[in-house]
Amino acid sequence: MAHVNESYLKLQAGYLFPEIGRRVNAFATANPDADIIRLGIGDVVKGIPRAIIDAMKAAAEELAHDETFRGYPSEQGLDFLREAISEHEYRIAGVDVGADEVFVSDGSKCDAGNIQEIFAADTVIALTDPVYPVYCDSNVMAGRTGVADADGRYERMVYLPCTEANAFTPPLPDRHVDLIYLCSPNNPTGTVMQRDTLKTWVDYARAEKSIIIFDAAYEGYITEPDLPHSIYEIDGAREVAIEMRSYSKSAGFTGTRCAFTIVPRELKGYTVAGDAIELHGLWNRRQSTKFNGVSYPVQRAAEAGYTPEGRAAVRDLIAFYLENASIMRERLTACGYTVHGGINAPYLWLRAPEGCDSWSFFDQLLHNAHVVGTPGAGFGAAGEGFFRLSAFNHRPAIDEAMDRIANL
Amino acid sequence: MAHVNESYLKLQAGYLFPEIGRRVNAFATANPDADIIRLGIGDVVKGIPRAIIDAMKAAAEELAHDETFRGYPSEQGLDFLREAISEHEYRIAGVDVGADEVFVSDGSKCDAGNIQEIFAADTVIALTDPVYPVYCDSNVMAGRTGVADADGRYERMVYLPCTEANAFTPPLPDRHVDLIYLCSPNNPTGTVMQRDTLKTWVDYARAEKSIIIFDAAYEGYITEPDLPHSIYEIDGAREVAIEMRSYSKSAGFTGTRCAFTIVPRELKGYTVAGDAIELHGLWNRRQSTKFNGVSYPVQRAAEAGYTPEGRAAVRDLIAFYLENASIMRERLTACGYTVHGGINAPYLWLRAPEGCDSWSFFDQLLHNAHVVGTPGAGFGAAGEGFFRLSAFNHRPAIDEAMDRIANL
Repeated sequence: MAHVNESYLKLQAGYLFPEIGRRVNAFATANPDADIIRLGIGDVVKGIPRAIIDAMKAAAEELAHDETFRGYPSEQGLDFLREAISEHEYRIAGVDVGADEVFVSDGSKCDAGNIQEIFAADTVIALTDPVYPVYCDSNVMAGRTGVADADGRYERMVYLPCTEANAFTPPLPDRHVDLIYLCSPNNPTGTVMQRDTLKTWVDYARAEKSIIIFDAAYEGYITEPDLPHSIYEIDGAREVAIEMRSYSKSAGFTGTRCAFTIVPRELKGYTVAGDAIELHGLWNRRQSTKFNGVSYPVQRAAEAGYTPEGRAAVRDLIAFYLENASIMRERLTACGYTVHGGINAPYLWLRAPEGCDSWSFFDQLLHNAHVVGTPGAGFGAAGEGFFRLSAFNHRPAIDEAMDRIANL
Repeated sequence: MAHVNESYLKLQAGYLFPEIGRRVNAFATANPDADIIRLGIGDVVKGIPRAIIDAMKAAAEELAHDETFRGYPSEQGLDFLREAISEHEYRIAGVDVGADEVFVSDGSKCDAGNIQEIFAADTVIALTDPVYPVYCDSNVMAGRTGVADADGRYERMVYLPCTEANAFTPPLPDRHVDLIYLCSPNNPTGTVMQRDTLKTWVDYARAEKSIIIFDAAYEGYITEPDLPHSIYEIDGAREVAIEMRSYSKSAGFTGTRCAFTIVPRELKGYTVAGDAIELHGLWNRRQSTKFNGVSYPVQRAAEAGYTPEGRAAVRDLIAFYLENASIMRERLTACGYTVHGGINAPYLWLRAPEGCDSWSFFDQLLHNAHVVGTPGAGFGAAGEGFFRLSAFNHRPAIDEAMDRIANL
């Protein structure tokens, strides 16, 4: 008798965004004339810059001809893109990341979900609360937790509450943890880790021989000076941290699928016997065995984002969404909401009205303003009472959504 | 202290194809003038048909404009492609597979590597020997085996030897197994499972409540009549089988990345307590959490392969590679080799010369004929003494490789 992985049965409800999709579809079916404005899932809406699309089409055309056809891409990413990433994401910012430490993938969600595979089954996981659900669910599915309590907190998972009281800065845990997921700029709170906070975490990880998964998918949205863009700006981080970045929210690649993960050569995990094992080799083996590389035209498209024309266009896209965020901050604040984020991130994290839980506020906004957001409780128990709005929409939709919320 | 997944340390050498790549690169570096002909990894070489590339470029262009931009694809695949697959791969062949049972992915290798995640940690795995290494390695990495013996056979894995004596037909196991990987047309032996053999397996799985992973990535290469193209042609298979197909070797998508996996609604696994659980829901949860869908232009390209023009061009591509295989069969047989496969598959499985093991034959062909093949032992202990040649190359290269082998 084939037995299933019963850890899947411990998962709550459904993955957050499909659950939101289900509620929105039900409402839309019942109210076919409602003009629903989506500020929920955080999906971009603007066209991809011309230089990038032209590169994608030119690469597609190469595939049509025997002379220029390319078959299997290397599982780690093609050299031209790995080198461009090393140069443009890191070296020009004074950070040393070699091309051979770059693993190109079809998305940070995939990498964030898969990275736990290279760690032991009894690894103790620390998550911020609220948290991007993939970090949590992928570890639940791998059997690293017990069941969830009424608040959705899983046994054996260590939670780091990020609240207004601590300015959404993850506190160090009160016990040893092996693997820590940090996301900065943060999804969902929109806050950025300060340099000294990040240093505290790197020092903790070095002392405890822990590993940090640093998700910097929104790095491009950092506008204020003196904030760290990469964890490798912190001394010693190469010994303890894996970093992830994505083209989804910068170049508009949510539908195109391309991201990358950095695994430094110095990074080590340990066997139970205490032998040091290079994580670079383990991740390389994982990707070589269970992944087959990113579509060639997509890799050429990503590369084109580093040309002068591509870079300027990507900067414009980010500036557009950040201006949306700025408008939203101002309008919501004027309505009396307490709003966090939205300065160095495309997300606003607002306090739900007094006495209103976050799923109720979700339903209220959907039904009365036809605006879709994301309930804070969907990101963890400490997200209860908060609500995430994304700045990813066209300007008229942003203005209209703010008008409707103001008129509630 | 972060502990690694020590199951990775049980893996042999390196994944087969990277190991071949390493040896070929070393030879090429030492012999820069050698004209190496690659009949090893099984990567296609012909340009992708015009109708398909035009669809990819048109879809890329859509992404450039706000009006036609598309963001996150659904994790299961976009409806237009799921429906085209249901219709053109199955319904026109008289096989009932619903669009909602189709999961589009970035490759059969990925699906074949990931599918084991939805099963219990103590699942007993049966593999043919020789076997496509991903089925094996992904289960080793998940901790379902002990260590390997000197022949590379892992403790707790059940092997089904496919030899000349049984015409490379996997025999039923002599003990209960939970999960069985079958590949037909077979990689590496190039043989196809007959209808009665497949029925025997479906009946076994129904009786034992086992699950069959049926990898039909080379389905398009079946030329002889009366051979099953889909496991769902067998009565009852929808209750016990997951099927995988790919565009890699049909439409030339090795560098484009698109495939699909069918999980029928009737398919169930069980909890230890004996409750039936739909595998469709588990795989959907896996994909929703750890995957983010296939690039939109790639999905449009795959769809275009089902237009009349696309279908004709794909048929021509397959016919070209099969003619290569036919030429190779004839030439190698004339040289005195015993050759299997190559009629309903793009692979030939030949017996290495008397007294020559398969890695020695690999080195001999590489060094003396500058031809790259794949040593049978790389696919499992029962592959020792055999050698795989792929028919994926241009005609002059095929002819030249056969000349060189004839002159050895």
